[in-house]
Amino acid sequence: MRTDFPSWMTAHQSRFEDVLQSLLPQAVIAPERLHQAMRYSVLDGGKRVRPLLAFAAGELAGADVLRVNIAAAAVELIHAYSLVHDDMPCMDDDVLRRGKPTCHVQYDEATALLVGDSLQSLAFQLLAEHELCDDPARQLSMIRLLAEASGSRGMAGGQAIDLESVGKQLALPELEFMHIHKTGALIRASVLLGAQCGNASPDQLERLDHFGKCVGLAFQVVDDVLDASEDTATLGKTAGKDAESNKPTYVTLLGMQEARKMAESLHLGALEALSEFGESALRLRELADFIVLRKF
Amino acid sequence: MRTDFPSWMTAHQSRFEDVLQSLLPQAVIAPERLHQAMRYSVLDGGKRVRPLLAFAAGELAGADVLRVNIAAAAVELIHAYSLVHDDMPCMDDDVLRRGKPTCHVQYDEATALLVGDSLQSLAFQLLAEHELCDDPARQLSMIRLLAEASGSRGMAGGQAIDLESVGKQLALPELEFMHIHKTGALIRASVLLGAQCGNASPDQLERLDHFGKCVGLAFQVVDDVLDASEDTATLGKTAGKDAESNKPTYVTLLGMQEARKMAESLHLGALEALSEFGESALRLRELADFIVLRKF
Repeated sequence: MRTDFPSWMTAHQSRFEDVLQSLLPQAVIAPERLHQAMRYSVLDGGKRVRPLLAFAAGELAGADVLRVNIAAAAVELIHAYSLVHDDMPCMDDDVLRRGKPTCHVQYDEATALLVGDSLQSLAFQLLAEHELCDDPARQLSMIRLLAEASGSRGMAGGQAIDLESVGKQLALPELEFMHIHKTGALIRASVLLGAQCGNASPDQLERLDHFGKCVGLAFQVVDDVLDASEDTATLGKTAGKDAESNKPTYVTLLGMQEARKMAESLHLGALEALSEFGESALRLRELADFIVLRKF
Repeated sequence: MRTDFPSWMTAHQSRFEDVLQSLLPQAVIAPERLHQAMRYSVLDGGKRVRPLLAFAAGELAGADVLRVNIAAAAVELIHAYSLVHDDMPCMDDDVLRRGKPTCHVQYDEATALLVGDSLQSLAFQLLAEHELCDDPARQLSMIRLLAEASGSRGMAGGQAIDLESVGKQLALPELEFMHIHKTGALIRASVLLGAQCGNASPDQLERLDHFGKCVGLAFQVVDDVLDASEDTATLGKTAGKDAESNKPTYVTLLGMQEARKMAESLHLGALEALSEFGESALRLRELADFIVLRKF
Protein backbone atom coordinates (compact mmCIF):
# COMPACT_ATOMS: atom_id res chain seq x y z
CA MET A 1 0.00 0.00 0.00
CA ARG A 2 1.17 3.50 -0.78
CA THR A 3 2.10 5.84 2.00
CA ASP A 4 0.20 9.08 2.35
CA PHE A 5 1.55 12.22 0.74
CA PRO A 6 3.08 13.86 3.84
CA SER A 7 5.00 10.66 4.62
CA TRP A 8 6.15 10.32 1.02
CA MET A 9 7.30 13.92 1.02
CA THR A 10 9.10 13.76 4.36
CA ALA A 11 10.84 10.52 3.45
CA HIS A 12 12.15 11.98 0.18
CA GLN A 13 13.17 15.26 1.77
CA SER A 14 15.13 13.52 4.46
CA ARG A 15 16.74 11.02 2.09
CA PHE A 16 17.58 13.78 -0.37
CA GLU A 17 19.40 15.75 2.33
CA ASP A 18 21.83 12.83 2.61
CA VAL A 19 22.20 12.77 -1.16
CA LEU A 20 23.17 16.45 -1.21
CA GLN A 21 25.50 15.91 1.77
CA SER A 22 27.42 13.30 -0.14
CA LEU A 23 27.46 15.06 -3.53
CA LEU A 24 28.72 18.42 -2.25
CA PRO A 25 32.50 18.69 -1.73
CA GLN A 26 33.42 17.95 1.86
CA ALA A 27 34.25 20.96 4.01
CA VAL A 28 37.73 19.62 4.81
CA ILE A 29 38.77 19.62 1.15
CA ALA A 30 40.66 22.72 -0.09
CA PRO A 31 39.56 25.43 -0.64
CA GLU A 32 37.88 24.75 2.70
CA ARG A 33 36.12 28.07 3.19
CA LEU A 34 34.52 27.96 -0.24
CA HIS A 35 33.36 24.39 0.31
CA GLN A 36 31.98 25.26 3.74
CA ALA A 37 30.08 28.17 2.22
CA MET A 38 28.72 25.96 -0.57
CA ARG A 39 27.43 23.46 1.98
CA TYR A 40 26.04 26.27 4.14
CA SER A 41 24.08 27.59 1.17
CA VAL A 42 22.60 24.29 0.02
CA LEU A 43 22.12 22.02 3.02
CA ASP A 44 19.38 22.18 5.61
CA GLY A 45 17.11 24.47 3.66
CA GLY A 46 13.85 24.71 1.82
CA LYS A 47 11.06 22.34 0.97
CA ARG A 48 12.97 20.93 -2.02
CA VAL A 49 9.95 21.42 -4.28
CA ARG A 50 11.99 20.95 -7.46
CA PRO A 51 13.62 17.68 -6.36
CA LEU A 52 10.20 16.41 -5.20
CA LEU A 53 8.81 17.11 -8.67
CA ALA A 54 11.72 15.19 -10.17
CA PHE A 55 11.13 12.24 -7.83
CA ALA A 56 7.40 12.21 -8.58
CA ALA A 57 8.02 12.35 -12.34
CA GLY A 58 10.67 9.67 -11.97
CA GLU A 59 8.19 7.38 -10.20
CA LEU A 60 5.70 7.95 -12.99
CA ALA A 61 8.31 6.94 -15.58
CA GLY A 62 9.66 3.95 -13.67
CA ALA A 63 13.06 5.57 -13.14
CA ASP A 64 15.75 4.23 -10.83
CA VAL A 65 15.71 6.58 -7.84
CA LEU A 66 19.52 6.59 -7.73
CA ARG A 67 19.50 8.22 -11.13
CA VAL A 68 16.78 10.70 -10.21
CA ASN A 69 18.85 11.66 -7.16
CA ILE A 70 21.48 13.10 -9.49
CA ALA A 71 19.03 14.98 -11.70
CA ALA A 72 17.24 16.34 -8.62
CA ALA A 73 20.53 17.43 -7.06
CA ALA A 74 21.59 19.23 -10.23
CA VAL A 75 18.32 21.17 -10.35
CA GLU A 76 18.52 22.01 -6.65
CA LEU A 77 22.12 23.24 -6.99
CA ILE A 78 21.04 25.56 -9.81
CA HIS A 79 18.18 26.81 -7.63
CA ALA A 80 20.51 27.27 -4.64
CA TYR A 81 23.10 29.18 -6.70
CA SER A 82 20.38 31.52 -7.96
CA LEU A 83 19.27 32.25 -4.38
CA VAL A 84 22.84 33.01 -3.26
CA HIS A 85 23.36 35.43 -6.14
CA ASP A 86 19.85 36.92 -5.81
CA ASP A 87 20.42 37.74 -2.16
CA MET A 88 23.59 39.74 -2.87
CA PRO A 89 23.56 43.51 -2.29
CA CYS A 90 23.59 44.32 -6.01
CA MET A 91 20.42 42.24 -6.48
CA ASP A 92 17.76 41.90 -3.75
CA ASP A 93 20.12 42.69 -0.86
CA ASP A 94 18.54 40.18 1.51
CA VAL A 95 20.20 39.37 4.83
CA LEU A 96 18.05 36.40 5.85
CA ARG A 97 17.15 33.24 3.98
CA ARG A 98 15.26 30.39 5.61
CA GLY A 99 15.94 31.91 9.01
CA LYS A 100 19.71 31.96 8.55
CA PRO A 101 22.01 34.83 7.50
CA THR A 102 22.40 34.82 3.71
CA CYS A 103 25.69 33.55 2.28
CA HIS A 104 27.28 36.96 1.72
CA VAL A 105 26.36 38.00 5.29
CA GLN A 106 27.66 34.78 6.87
CA TYR A 107 30.82 34.77 4.72
CA ASP A 108 31.43 37.73 2.41
CA GLU A 109 30.31 38.99 -0.99
CA ALA A 110 33.25 37.63 -2.94
CA THR A 111 32.74 34.19 -1.43
CA ALA A 112 29.01 34.32 -2.19
CA LEU A 113 29.81 35.15 -5.80
CA LEU A 114 32.17 32.15 -6.04
CA VAL A 115 29.72 29.89 -4.19
CA GLY A 116 27.06 30.58 -6.80
CA ASP A 117 29.51 30.11 -9.66
CA SER A 118 30.79 26.85 -8.21
CA LEU A 119 27.35 25.44 -7.49
CA GLN A 120 26.41 25.99 -11.12
CA SER A 121 29.54 24.17 -12.33
CA LEU A 122 28.86 21.33 -9.91
CA ALA A 123 25.32 20.91 -11.25
CA PHE A 124 26.62 20.26 -14.76
CA GLN A 125 29.47 18.14 -13.47
CA LEU A 126 26.99 15.83 -11.73
CA LEU A 127 24.85 15.48 -14.86
CA ALA A 128 27.92 14.59 -16.91
CA GLU A 129 29.71 12.21 -14.54
CA HIS A 130 26.86 9.98 -13.35
CA GLU A 131 24.75 7.70 -15.51
CA LEU A 132 21.27 9.22 -15.75
CA CYS A 133 19.76 6.96 -18.38
CA ASP A 134 20.74 4.10 -20.69
CA ASP A 135 21.46 6.33 -23.68
CA PRO A 136 24.39 8.81 -23.47
CA ALA A 137 22.88 10.82 -26.35
CA ARG A 138 19.70 11.31 -24.34
CA GLN A 139 21.81 12.27 -21.35
CA LEU A 140 23.41 15.01 -23.47
CA SER A 141 19.95 16.35 -24.28
CA MET A 142 19.14 16.36 -20.56
CA ILE A 143 22.22 18.50 -19.88
CA ARG A 144 21.16 20.82 -22.67
CA LEU A 145 17.69 21.07 -21.12
CA LEU A 146 19.04 22.17 -17.75
CA ALA A 147 21.52 24.59 -19.34
CA GLU A 148 18.76 26.25 -21.36
CA ALA A 149 16.45 26.38 -18.35
CA SER A 150 19.20 28.08 -16.29
CA GLY A 151 20.63 30.57 -18.76
CA SER A 152 19.73 33.84 -20.42
CA ARG A 153 16.66 32.37 -22.07
CA GLY A 154 15.60 30.67 -18.86
CA MET A 155 16.02 31.47 -15.19
CA ALA A 156 18.81 34.08 -15.43
CA GLY A 157 16.95 35.79 -18.27
CA GLY A 158 13.82 35.93 -16.12
CA GLN A 159 15.80 37.63 -13.38
CA ALA A 160 17.10 40.16 -15.87
CA ILE A 161 13.53 40.96 -16.94
CA ASP A 162 12.55 41.18 -13.28
CA LEU A 163 15.30 43.76 -12.66
CA GLU A 164 14.13 45.85 -15.55
CA SER A 165 10.50 45.68 -14.48
CA VAL A 166 10.92 47.47 -11.15
CA GLY A 167 8.90 50.64 -11.23
CA LYS A 168 7.41 49.82 -14.62
CA GLN A 169 3.84 49.07 -15.61
CA LEU A 170 3.92 45.54 -17.00
CA ALA A 171 1.02 44.09 -18.90
CA LEU A 172 -0.12 40.57 -18.03
CA PRO A 173 1.69 38.90 -20.95
CA GLU A 174 4.95 40.54 -19.92
CA LEU A 175 4.56 39.47 -16.32
CA GLU A 176 3.84 35.95 -17.50
CA PHE A 177 6.86 36.01 -19.81
CA MET A 178 9.04 36.97 -16.84
CA HIS A 179 7.78 34.23 -14.55
CA ILE A 180 7.78 31.54 -17.20
CA HIS A 181 11.51 32.22 -17.37
CA LYS A 182 12.38 33.10 -13.80
CA THR A 183 10.76 30.23 -11.94
CA GLY A 184 8.86 28.27 -14.58
CA ALA A 185 11.84 27.10 -16.61
CA LEU A 186 13.54 25.33 -13.72
CA ILE A 187 10.33 23.76 -12.42
CA ARG A 188 9.56 22.46 -15.88
CA ALA A 189 13.12 21.09 -16.14
CA SER A 190 12.70 19.31 -12.79
CA VAL A 191 9.69 17.38 -14.05
CA LEU A 192 11.21 16.56 -17.44
CA LEU A 193 14.59 15.50 -16.07
CA GLY A 194 12.97 13.20 -13.52
CA ALA A 195 10.85 11.61 -16.25
CA GLN A 196 13.80 11.25 -18.62
CA CYS A 197 15.70 9.24 -16.02
CA GLY A 198 12.99 6.67 -16.73
CA ASN A 199 11.18 5.65 -19.85
CA ALA A 200 8.68 8.37 -20.65
CA SER A 201 7.59 8.45 -24.30
CA PRO A 202 7.80 11.70 -26.33
CA ASP A 203 4.04 12.00 -26.04
CA GLN A 204 4.18 11.56 -22.28
CA LEU A 205 7.02 14.08 -22.03
CA GLU A 206 4.88 16.59 -23.88
CA ARG A 207 2.06 16.20 -21.37
CA LEU A 208 4.50 16.42 -18.48
CA ASP A 209 5.93 19.55 -20.06
CA HIS A 210 2.48 21.11 -20.04
CA PHE A 211 2.02 20.00 -16.43
CA GLY A 212 5.35 21.62 -15.52
CA LYS A 213 4.42 24.89 -17.20
CA CYS A 214 1.08 25.10 -15.37
CA VAL A 215 2.59 24.23 -12.00
CA GLY A 216 5.49 26.63 -12.50
CA LEU A 217 3.23 29.56 -13.22
CA ALA A 218 0.73 28.57 -10.51
CA PHE A 219 3.62 28.51 -8.05
CA GLN A 220 4.30 32.18 -8.77
CA VAL A 221 0.68 33.31 -8.75
CA VAL A 222 0.20 31.63 -5.36
CA ASP A 223 3.38 33.34 -4.10
CA ASP A 224 1.95 36.70 -5.10
CA VAL A 225 -1.39 35.95 -3.49
CA LEU A 226 0.25 34.84 -0.24
CA ASP A 227 2.61 37.81 -0.20
CA ALA A 228 -0.28 40.22 -0.60
CA SER A 229 -2.78 38.52 1.71
CA GLU A 230 -0.34 37.79 4.53
CA ASP A 231 0.71 41.38 4.76
CA THR A 232 -2.86 42.54 4.47
CA ALA A 233 -3.76 40.40 7.45
CA THR A 234 -0.74 40.92 9.64
CA LEU A 235 0.39 44.44 8.77
CA GLY A 236 -2.86 46.03 7.71
CA LYS A 237 -1.36 46.99 4.36
CA THR A 238 -3.16 46.51 1.11
CA ALA A 239 -0.21 44.73 -0.43
CA GLY A 240 3.03 43.08 0.56
CA LYS A 241 6.71 43.67 -0.05
CA ASP A 242 6.48 43.23 -3.82
CA ALA A 243 4.07 46.11 -4.10
CA GLU A 244 6.19 48.11 -1.68
CA SER A 245 9.25 47.68 -3.86
CA ASN A 246 7.05 48.64 -6.77
CA LYS A 247 7.29 45.25 -8.43
CA PRO A 248 4.34 44.20 -10.55
CA THR A 249 2.56 41.06 -9.27
CA TYR A 250 -0.46 39.07 -10.32
CA VAL A 251 -2.35 40.64 -7.44
CA THR A 252 -1.48 44.23 -8.34
CA LEU A 253 -2.29 43.50 -11.96
CA LEU A 254 -5.42 41.36 -11.65
CA GLY A 255 -6.66 42.02 -8.14
CA MET A 256 -6.80 39.37 -5.44
CA GLN A 257 -9.98 37.71 -6.67
CA GLU A 258 -8.81 37.22 -10.24
CA ALA A 259 -5.34 36.13 -9.14
CA ARG A 260 -6.88 33.36 -7.03
CA LYS A 261 -9.02 32.33 -9.98
CA MET A 262 -5.96 32.20 -12.19
CA ALA A 263 -4.13 29.95 -9.72
CA GLU A 264 -7.12 27.64 -9.61
CA SER A 265 -7.36 27.51 -13.37
CA LEU A 266 -3.63 26.69 -13.68
CA HIS A 267 -4.07 24.03 -11.02
CA LEU A 268 -6.85 22.50 -13.09
CA GLY A 269 -4.73 22.67 -16.24
CA ALA A 270 -1.92 20.85 -14.43
CA LEU A 271 -4.24 18.06 -13.28
CA GLU A 272 -5.78 17.70 -16.75
CA ALA A 273 -2.33 17.23 -18.24
CA LEU A 274 -1.93 14.21 -15.97
CA SER A 275 -5.35 12.70 -16.68
CA GLU A 276 -4.12 9.89 -18.94
CA PHE A 277 -1.43 8.69 -16.57
CA GLY A 278 -3.78 7.18 -14.02
CA GLU A 279 -2.35 5.99 -10.70
CA SER A 280 1.29 6.50 -11.74
CA ALA A 281 0.78 10.27 -11.57
CA LEU A 282 -0.49 10.24 -7.98
CA ARG A 283 2.52 12.02 -6.49
CA LEU A 284 2.58 14.66 -9.22
CA ARG A 285 -1.11 15.35 -8.56
CA GLU A 286 -0.48 15.61 -4.86
CA LEU A 287 2.45 17.95 -5.46
CA ALA A 288 0.30 20.17 -7.67
CA ASP A 289 -2.27 20.33 -4.87
CA PHE A 290 0.47 21.02 -2.34
CA ILE A 291 1.96 23.85 -4.39
CA VAL A 292 -1.33 25.56 -5.22
CA LEU A 293 -3.28 25.00 -2.04
CA ARG A 294 -0.39 25.87 0.31
CA LYS A 295 -2.39 28.31 2.30
CA PHE A 296 -5.47 29.63 0.61
CA MET B 1 52.93 24.65 -47.32
CA ARG B 2 52.06 25.77 -43.83
CA THR B 3 51.49 29.40 -43.08
CA ASP B 4 53.70 31.08 -40.50
CA PHE B 5 52.56 31.30 -36.90
CA PRO B 6 51.37 34.94 -36.90
CA SER B 7 49.21 34.27 -39.96
CA TRP B 8 47.83 31.06 -38.45
CA MET B 9 47.02 32.89 -35.24
CA THR B 10 45.41 35.90 -36.89
CA ALA B 11 43.32 33.73 -39.18
CA HIS B 12 41.99 31.68 -36.26
CA GLN B 13 41.38 34.74 -34.10
CA SER B 14 39.40 36.43 -36.81
CA ARG B 15 37.45 33.32 -37.76
CA PHE B 16 36.73 32.57 -34.10
CA GLU B 17 35.26 36.03 -33.60
CA ASP B 18 32.59 35.10 -36.15
CA VAL B 19 32.02 31.81 -34.35
CA LEU B 20 31.39 33.62 -31.07
CA GLN B 21 29.19 36.17 -32.84
CA SER B 22 26.92 33.45 -34.10
CA LEU B 23 26.87 31.33 -30.92
CA LEU B 24 26.00 34.17 -28.54
CA PRO B 25 22.30 35.09 -28.34
CA GLN B 26 21.51 37.95 -30.69
CA ALA B 27 21.08 41.35 -29.04
CA VAL B 28 17.53 41.73 -30.40
CA ILE B 29 16.30 38.63 -28.57
CA ALA B 30 14.65 39.20 -25.17
CA PRO B 31 15.96 39.91 -22.61
CA GLU B 32 17.75 42.36 -24.89
CA ARG B 33 19.82 44.20 -22.33
CA LEU B 34 21.23 40.99 -20.86
CA HIS B 35 22.08 39.67 -24.31
CA GLN B 36 23.72 42.95 -25.27
CA ALA B 37 25.80 42.83 -22.09
CA MET B 38 26.80 39.21 -22.75
CA ARG B 39 27.98 40.15 -26.24
CA TYR B 40 29.75 43.25 -24.91
CA SER B 41 31.67 41.09 -22.43
CA VAL B 42 32.75 38.38 -24.84
CA LEU B 43 33.19 39.88 -28.30
CA ASP B 44 36.05 41.97 -29.56
CA GLY B 45 38.43 41.15 -26.76
CA GLY B 46 41.58 39.33 -25.81
CA LYS B 47 44.10 37.20 -27.64
CA ARG B 48 41.89 34.08 -27.33
CA VAL B 49 44.82 32.07 -25.97
CA ARG B 50 42.59 29.25 -24.74
CA PRO B 51 40.72 28.82 -28.04
CA LEU B 52 44.05 28.90 -29.90
CA LEU B 53 45.32 26.08 -27.69
CA ALA B 54 42.16 24.12 -28.48
CA PHE B 55 42.60 24.70 -32.22
CA ALA B 56 46.27 23.69 -32.10
CA ALA B 57 45.48 20.53 -30.12
CA GLY B 58 42.59 19.82 -32.49
CA GLU B 59 44.94 20.04 -35.49
CA LEU B 60 47.32 17.64 -33.78
CA ALA B 61 44.51 15.14 -33.26
CA GLY B 62 42.98 15.51 -36.73
CA ALA B 63 39.77 17.06 -35.38
CA ASP B 64 37.11 18.69 -37.51
CA VAL B 65 37.53 22.42 -36.91
CA LEU B 66 33.74 22.87 -36.74
CA ARG B 67 33.74 20.67 -33.67
CA VAL B 68 36.72 22.41 -32.10
CA ASN B 69 34.91 25.73 -32.62
CA ILE B 70 32.31 24.63 -30.08
CA ALA B 71 34.80 23.35 -27.52
CA ALA B 72 36.87 26.54 -27.91
CA ALA B 73 33.79 28.72 -27.54
CA ALA B 74 32.73 26.91 -24.36
CA VAL B 75 36.15 27.42 -22.80
CA GLU B 76 36.23 31.07 -23.84
CA LEU B 77 32.74 31.69 -22.40
CA ILE B 78 33.88 30.25 -19.07
CA HIS B 79 36.95 32.48 -19.19
CA ALA B 80 34.85 35.52 -20.10
CA TYR B 81 32.34 34.87 -17.30
CA SER B 82 35.20 34.64 -14.79
CA LEU B 83 36.56 38.00 -15.94
CA VAL B 84 33.15 39.69 -15.63
CA HIS B 85 32.69 38.37 -12.08
CA ASP B 86 36.35 39.04 -11.13
CA ASP B 87 36.04 42.67 -12.15
CA MET B 88 33.04 43.29 -9.89
CA PRO B 89 33.45 45.60 -6.88
CA CYS B 90 33.30 42.74 -4.37
CA MET B 91 36.21 41.04 -6.13
CA ASP B 92 38.99 43.02 -7.87
CA ASP B 93 36.89 46.14 -8.46
CA ASP B 94 38.34 46.88 -11.89
CA VAL B 95 36.81 49.55 -14.11
CA LEU B 96 38.72 48.84 -17.31
CA ARG B 97 39.23 45.60 -19.22
CA ARG B 98 40.93 45.50 -22.60
CA GLY B 99 40.57 49.26 -22.88
CA LYS B 100 36.80 49.23 -22.39
CA PRO B 101 34.73 49.88 -19.26
CA THR B 102 34.12 46.60 -17.42
CA CYS B 103 30.67 45.05 -17.65
CA HIS B 104 29.36 46.34 -14.31
CA VAL B 105 30.56 49.87 -15.19
CA GLN B 106 29.07 49.84 -18.69
CA TYR B 107 25.81 48.25 -17.48
CA ASP B 108 25.34 47.69 -13.74
CA GLU B 109 26.39 45.21 -11.08
CA ALA B 110 23.23 43.12 -11.16
CA THR B 111 23.51 42.77 -14.93
CA ALA B 112 27.19 41.82 -14.64
CA LEU B 113 26.27 39.12 -12.15
CA LEU B 114 23.64 37.71 -14.52
CA VAL B 115 25.96 38.02 -17.53
CA GLY B 116 28.53 35.82 -15.80
CA ASP B 117 25.90 33.33 -14.71
CA SER B 118 24.39 33.16 -18.19
CA LEU B 119 27.74 32.79 -19.95
CA GLN B 120 28.52 29.80 -17.77
CA SER B 121 25.16 28.16 -18.60
CA LEU B 122 25.72 28.86 -22.28
CA ALA B 123 29.13 27.16 -22.20
CA PHE B 124 27.57 23.90 -21.01
CA GLN B 125 24.61 24.29 -23.33
CA LEU B 126 26.97 24.47 -26.33
CA LEU B 127 28.89 21.38 -25.24
CA ALA B 128 25.65 19.45 -24.85
CA GLU B 129 23.78 20.54 -27.97
CA HIS B 130 26.47 20.26 -30.66
CA GLU B 131 28.23 17.09 -31.72
CA LEU B 132 31.82 17.28 -30.48
CA CYS B 133 32.97 13.76 -31.27
CA ASP B 134 31.62 10.47 -32.59
CA ASP B 135 30.94 8.98 -29.17
CA PRO B 136 28.27 10.61 -26.94
CA ALA B 137 29.79 8.92 -23.88
CA ARG B 138 33.11 10.61 -24.58
CA GLN B 139 31.27 13.89 -25.08
CA LEU B 140 29.81 13.49 -21.58
CA SER B 141 33.33 13.08 -20.20
CA MET B 142 34.34 16.28 -22.04
CA ILE B 143 31.52 18.17 -20.31
CA ARG B 144 32.63 16.74 -17.00
CA LEU B 145 36.19 17.90 -17.72
CA LEU B 146 35.12 21.50 -18.32
CA ALA B 147 32.81 21.49 -15.29
CA GLU B 148 35.59 20.26 -13.01
CA ALA B 149 38.05 22.75 -14.49
CA SER B 150 35.57 25.59 -13.85
CA GLY B 151 34.27 24.77 -10.40
CA SER B 152 35.36 24.79 -6.78
CA ARG B 153 38.20 22.36 -7.44
CA GLY B 154 39.26 24.25 -10.54
CA MET B 155 39.11 27.90 -11.59
CA ALA B 156 36.57 29.18 -9.04
CA GLY B 157 38.44 27.34 -6.28
CA GLY B 158 41.68 28.99 -7.36
CA GLN B 159 40.01 32.38 -7.10
CA ALA B 160 38.82 31.53 -3.59
CA ILE B 161 42.38 30.65 -2.58
CA ASP B 162 43.57 33.87 -4.21
CA LEU B 163 41.10 35.89 -2.11
CA GLU B 164 42.30 34.24 1.05
CA SER B 165 45.95 34.78 0.18
CA VAL B 166 45.88 38.59 0.18
CA GLY B 167 48.20 39.83 2.89
CA LYS B 168 49.40 36.32 3.72
CA GLN B 169 52.81 34.80 3.34
CA LEU B 170 52.35 31.92 0.92
CA ALA B 171 55.00 29.30 0.39
CA LEU B 172 55.86 28.28 -3.16
CA PRO B 173 53.74 25.08 -3.12
CA GLU B 174 50.70 27.08 -1.99
CA LEU B 175 51.19 29.68 -4.69
CA GLU B 176 51.51 26.89 -7.23
CA PHE B 177 48.39 25.19 -5.90
CA MET B 178 46.48 28.44 -6.36
CA HIS B 179 47.60 29.03 -9.95
CA ILE B 180 47.20 25.41 -11.02
CA HIS B 181 43.56 25.93 -10.13
CA LYS B 182 42.97 29.56 -11.04
CA THR B 183 44.42 29.66 -14.55
CA GLY B 184 45.98 26.24 -15.07
CA ALA B 185 42.80 24.18 -14.96
CA LEU B 186 41.10 26.02 -17.81
CA ILE B 187 44.23 26.11 -19.99
CA ARG B 188 44.67 22.39 -19.48
CA ALA B 189 41.00 21.84 -20.36
CA SER B 190 41.42 23.89 -23.56
CA VAL B 191 44.17 21.58 -24.81
CA LEU B 192 42.41 18.38 -23.81
CA LEU B 193 39.03 19.37 -25.20
CA GLY B 194 40.56 20.35 -28.53
CA ALA B 195 42.38 17.02 -28.72
CA GLN B 196 39.29 15.04 -27.73
CA CYS B 197 37.34 16.54 -30.63
CA GLY B 198 39.76 14.44 -32.70
CA ASN B 199 41.29 11.05 -32.18
CA ALA B 200 43.98 11.41 -29.54
CA SER B 201 44.88 8.17 -27.78
CA PRO B 202 44.84 7.97 -23.96
CA ASP B 203 48.65 8.01 -24.04
CA GLN B 204 48.67 11.11 -26.23
CA LEU B 205 46.11 12.80 -23.99
CA GLU B 206 48.36 12.16 -21.03
CA ARG B 207 51.26 13.91 -22.72
CA LEU B 208 49.01 16.76 -23.80
CA ASP B 209 47.80 17.00 -20.22
CA HIS B 210 51.39 17.45 -19.06
CA PHE B 211 51.90 20.05 -21.79
CA GLY B 212 48.79 21.91 -20.63
CA LYS B 213 49.93 21.92 -17.01
CA CYS B 214 53.37 23.31 -17.90
CA VAL B 215 51.97 25.98 -20.20
CA GLY B 216 49.28 26.96 -17.70
CA LEU B 217 51.77 27.53 -14.93
CA ALA B 218 54.30 29.19 -17.23
CA PHE B 219 51.55 31.57 -18.32
CA GLN B 220 51.16 32.76 -14.73
CA VAL B 221 54.87 33.00 -13.95
CA VAL B 222 55.35 35.12 -17.08
CA ASP B 223 52.43 37.31 -16.02
CA ASP B 224 54.07 37.91 -12.68
CA VAL B 225 57.42 38.67 -14.30
CA LEU B 226 55.86 41.12 -16.74
CA ASP B 227 53.78 42.77 -14.04
CA ALA B 228 56.85 43.35 -11.89
CA SER B 229 59.28 44.33 -14.64
CA GLU B 230 56.94 46.65 -16.50
CA ASP B 231 56.21 48.64 -13.42
CA THR B 232 59.86 48.64 -12.48
CA ALA B 233 60.73 50.11 -15.83
CA THR B 234 57.89 52.55 -16.32
CA LEU B 235 57.04 53.59 -12.79
CA GLY B 236 60.34 53.10 -11.02
CA LYS B 237 58.78 50.77 -8.48
CA THR B 238 60.34 47.54 -7.44
CA ALA B 239 57.18 45.61 -8.10
CA GLY B 240 53.82 46.00 -9.82
CA LYS B 241 50.21 46.08 -8.76
CA ASP B 242 50.22 42.56 -7.33
CA ALA B 243 52.90 43.49 -4.83
CA GLU B 244 51.07 46.75 -4.12
CA SER B 245 47.89 44.91 -3.26
CA ASN B 246 50.05 42.61 -1.13
CA LYS B 247 49.42 39.57 -3.29
CA PRO B 248 52.14 36.96 -3.37
CA THR B 249 53.67 36.41 -6.82
CA TYR B 250 56.45 34.26 -8.23
CA VAL B 251 58.61 37.38 -8.35
CA THR B 252 58.04 38.39 -4.73
CA LEU B 253 58.61 34.79 -3.67
CA LEU B 254 61.51 33.76 -5.85
CA GLY B 255 62.98 37.03 -7.04
CA MET B 256 63.01 38.11 -10.67
CA GLN B 257 65.96 35.97 -11.70
CA GLU B 258 64.57 32.72 -10.35
CA ALA B 259 61.08 33.47 -11.62
CA ARG B 260 62.47 33.84 -15.14
CA LYS B 261 64.36 30.58 -14.74
CA MET B 262 61.18 28.86 -13.61
CA ALA B 263 59.28 30.12 -16.67
CA GLU B 264 62.06 28.82 -18.90
CA SER B 265 62.08 25.47 -17.22
CA LEU B 266 58.29 25.13 -17.59
CA HIS B 267 58.61 26.15 -21.22
CA LEU B 268 61.14 23.36 -21.71
CA GLY B 269 58.86 20.88 -19.92
CA ALA B 270 56.02 21.85 -22.24
CA LEU B 271 58.13 21.30 -25.35
CA GLU B 272 59.43 17.97 -24.08
CA ALA B 273 55.87 16.75 -23.57
CA LEU B 274 55.33 17.33 -27.29
CA SER B 275 58.55 15.68 -28.46
CA GLU B 276 56.97 12.48 -29.76
CA PHE B 277 54.29 14.23 -31.81
CA GLY B 278 56.63 15.52 -34.49
CA GLU B 279 55.27 17.96 -37.04
CA SER B 280 51.66 17.64 -35.90
CA ALA B 281 52.51 19.55 -32.71
CA LEU B 282 53.96 22.55 -34.54
CA ARG B 283 51.21 24.96 -33.55
CA LEU B 284 51.25 23.85 -29.93
CA ARG B 285 55.03 24.42 -29.82
CA GLU B 286 54.62 27.84 -31.36
CA LEU B 287 51.88 28.70 -28.86
CA ALA B 288 54.10 27.63 -25.97
CA ASP B 289 56.82 29.92 -27.32
CA PHE B 290 54.29 32.71 -27.80
CA ILE B 291 52.96 32.40 -24.25
CA VAL B 292 56.34 32.18 -22.53
CA LEU B 293 58.39 34.55 -24.66
CA ARG B 294 55.73 37.27 -24.86
CA LYS B 295 58.03 40.03 -23.78
CA PHE B 296 61.08 38.90 -21.93
